[in-house]
Amino acid sequence: MQAIPDTRDGRPRVVIIGGGFGGLSAARALASAPVRVTLIDRRNHHLFQPLLYQVATAALSPADIAVPIRGVLGTGREEGLEVFLDEVTGVDLEKRLVNLRTDGPVAYDRLIVAAGSRYSYFGHDEWQAHAPSLKSLDDATEIRRRILLAFERAETVKDPEERRRLLTFVVVGGGPTGVEMAGAMAELAKATLRQDFSHIDPAGARIILVEAIDELLSAFTDSQSAYTCEALSKMGVEVRLKSPVEAVGPGFVRFGGETVETPNVFWCAGVQAEPVAGWFGAAADKQGRVVVDAQMRLPGHPDVFVIGDAASVTGPDGKPYPALAPVAKQQGAHVAAIIAAEMTGEPAPGPFRYRDWGTMATIGRSAAVGKFGKFAVKGFFAWVLWGLVHVGYLVGFRNRIVVLVNWFWQWLTYRKGARLITGSPRLPPTHPPRKLRDEAPARSTLDS
Amino acid sequence: MQAIPDTRDGRPRVVIIGGGFGGLSAARALASAPVRVTLIDRRNHHLFQPLLYQVATAALSPADIAVPIRGVLGTGREEGLEVFLDEVTGVDLEKRLVNLRTDGPVAYDRLIVAAGSRYSYFGHDEWQAHAPSLKSLDDATEIRRRILLAFERAETVKDPEERRRLLTFVVVGGGPTGVEMAGAMAELAKATLRQDFSHIDPAGARIILVEAIDELLSAFTDSQSAYTCEALSKMGVEVRLKSPVEAVGPGFVRFGGETVETPNVFWCAGVQAEPVAGWFGAAADKQGRVVVDAQMRLPGHPDVFVIGDAASVTGPDGKPYPALAPVAKQQGAHVAAIIAAEMTGEPAPGPFRYRDWGTMATIGRSAAVGKFGKFAVKGFFAWVLWGLVHVGYLVGFRNRIVVLVNWFWQWLTYRKGARLITGSPRLPPTHPPRKLRDEAPARSTLDS
Repeated sequence: MQAIPDTRDGRPRVVIIGGGFGGLSAARALASAPVRVTLIDRRNHHLFQPLLYQVATAALSPADIAVPIRGVLGTGREEGLEVFLDEVTGVDLEKRLVNLRTDGPVAYDRLIVAAGSRYSYFGHDEWQAHAPSLKSLDDATEIRRRILLAFERAETVKDPEERRRLLTFVVVGGGPTGVEMAGAMAELAKATLRQDFSHIDPAGARIILVEAIDELLSAFTDSQSAYTCEALSKMGVEVRLKSPVEAVGPGFVRFGGETVETPNVFWCAGVQAEPVAGWFGAAADKQGRVVVDAQMRLPGHPDVFVIGDAASVTGPDGKPYPALAPVAKQQGAHVAAIIAAEMTGEPAPGPFRYRDWGTMATIGRSAAVGKFGKFAVKGFFAWVLWGLVHVGYLVGFRNRIVVLVNWFWQWLTYRKGARLITGSPRLPPTHPPRKLRDEAPARSTLDS
Repeated sequence: MQAIPDTRDGRPRVVIIGGGFGGLSAARALASAPVRVTLIDRRNHHLFQPLLYQVATAALSPADIAVPIRGVLGTGREEGLEVFLDEVTGVDLEKRLVNLRTDGPVAYDRLIVAAGSRYSYFGHDEWQAHAPSLKSLDDATEIRRRILLAFERAETVKDPEERRRLLTFVVVGGGPTGVEMAGAMAELAKATLRQDFSHIDPAGARIILVEAIDELLSAFTDSQSAYTCEALSKMGVEVRLKSPVEAVGPGFVRFGGETVETPNVFWCAGVQAEPVAGWFGAAADKQGRVVVDAQMRLPGHPDVFVIGDAASVTGPDGKPYPALAPVAKQQGAHVAAIIAAEMTGEPAPGPFRYRDWGTMATIGRSAAVGKFGKFAVKGFFAWVLWGLVHVGYLVGFRNRIVVLVNWFWQWLTYRKGARLITGSPRLPPTHPPRKLRDEAPARSTLDS
């Protein structure tokens, strides 16, 4: 290992790439260490991704589930912490520099890469244009815009085929996000919007959840997976198992041999690490995660750590840990402890061991599943627990109160408070193309 | 007047263009009349514009000040009310048709035009690209993005001139919106963001409020105008009176002979009606408002009414009523009463008289002015009153609670909860152009 060069005040610099669960956890744990910290993210906010689907389905506002990174970390002129809004374009391992898109490079003594992941189109990136995925706040407001616009357009078109296409929604991916999206969309269509329209019955909207393998929520027990299928079906969601997606194009999606005509396809399947392996020329697994050791160090570069969704860290059972927020958080704290020990000369912590407190997924109003070691819960109790846990985790006091008020109000009234269409009022094309406006005759609008 | 053609159930159709204060008020007042109502708006939400500046300055979320028009009006399959999301492109007065951008025309028996207004660039529409105005939710999140990005960029640039340009903000227009924007931006810079950065002092940001005439808030008393100047100056805002804007370009603005280099120019000046006069070939005043009679009827077309910011209606003093939300609301109710009377054969209400309950404007934390007939108030009491009145007016129960929680929390902590940069992380160009990235050397980030 190289000697640690001094900064002006003698404290080495730790650079963290990414302000998600892993990066934030590392930055917080380093606050008491004798280092200076630079956190770089291409957005100014930390996002509570487990609730992102609620923004996409008009239940919560973006500000309810996101907080400015500066505000959360308490950056300031007196602190040993700085935050840069910029995009990382590469890392120079020799010179120990992080290259940025807008500004000059940033020098590091220790580097923590917590760049996260995105959804995977399984080699078909061209599908993304027709089936947006749900990863950022912009994605969520775009999906919200498309869902709400589809109902608005269906209200005004006269062609029943076109109306049917507009009122068909396909969610790809039977993991937690896909299940939550499908359930929330069913609530939106069948309860919230039910009374809102004159010419269509939103409750008649088709919502299809598509999964390649033979069960939903495969990380849960078989009984919980079956319960999830059943609960979704009761809510009016059509679940298609063993139906890998074969094609997505303008106005249609094909899966399991079936073609569905709709402009509303939303992608919540697969996991693909941000392309950090390319920065290092490092070995990656098939999801693009950098293979690191049990101390999360990049092989051959002990001053570089990779954590969270971007890292493949093998657990005691020989399998890599899953891409989950708690894993990233614990890895962030662990790496911070390693660095702090190096700086103070204390003995370093051993290899990383993930402490699994359990996982949960919600299906819809009053239905959820949870798995805590040998305990498996489902139904109303699990749903209440889910709500309490997620509000508890939400970063920042204000958000908790506002989210609770919103949720309670919606639960009482079935109303969703954030049904706003922002951005362009245009929809993507449906298939086949709609009639031209000039052909349409004057109509008695309430008689159709 | 022409005979009223029957619809299928014998009820004539009233078409309302615009879901702002005027259109919504008319639709509500017509709920009990024997008519069917079609409301057309190019957005799906009613916007509480008086608080839009709080979205632009990161205090409130879009959903806090906007509600879906369908939700507010209680549209539904059983009601005599429908809502269309579409843009009006013209009106055929002969055939009584409203032409839409996407769908076939809509036939009307009575037409109420409540299309509103926008800001006026005084014949220089090319300035808009460099000085966005604040009229829609998209405008507000765009301005919020630009303000927050300017601080983020200033944190990372090294050139002190460039940093100075980025930390200069110019608000054009000394009316209520301009005053409120400037005050809220001063709070954001000097309190909320104060501790957030390592390399800049946000409190050192320059905020300049530019007004063409010799006072701010000219609709208020001289003493209140002077108080407003004083309160803003105390908050660190530089007020420039008698300084008409002469030019706006990429990275600069010139007013009153002075040129200020900044990419952050925001426009809150002038009023210009939406171009509805062109639909009718009707006479308009210099703000483009359609000149109508005291019953808000279009001359020669008694079945067409124009109300709100789009109409010029002369009051008993011979002057047209101002473009204010309460005027639009009262006109909407008045026109609805005229139409209801025509349908039932009862005597029609007389000419419109605006009942002025007073006006208010807020300047910043604990400072506001209010004018109620002969009563004029200012200071902390006016500010509390302003808050109560505005929360009271907010449409929808949920929004009131959430806004109150947000406001109280911000007041206690100086924190603004909606400091999110969404959309592109690029800033408009500054002037002169910034150095290219390749020229920048590696830097010790915390030493600068």
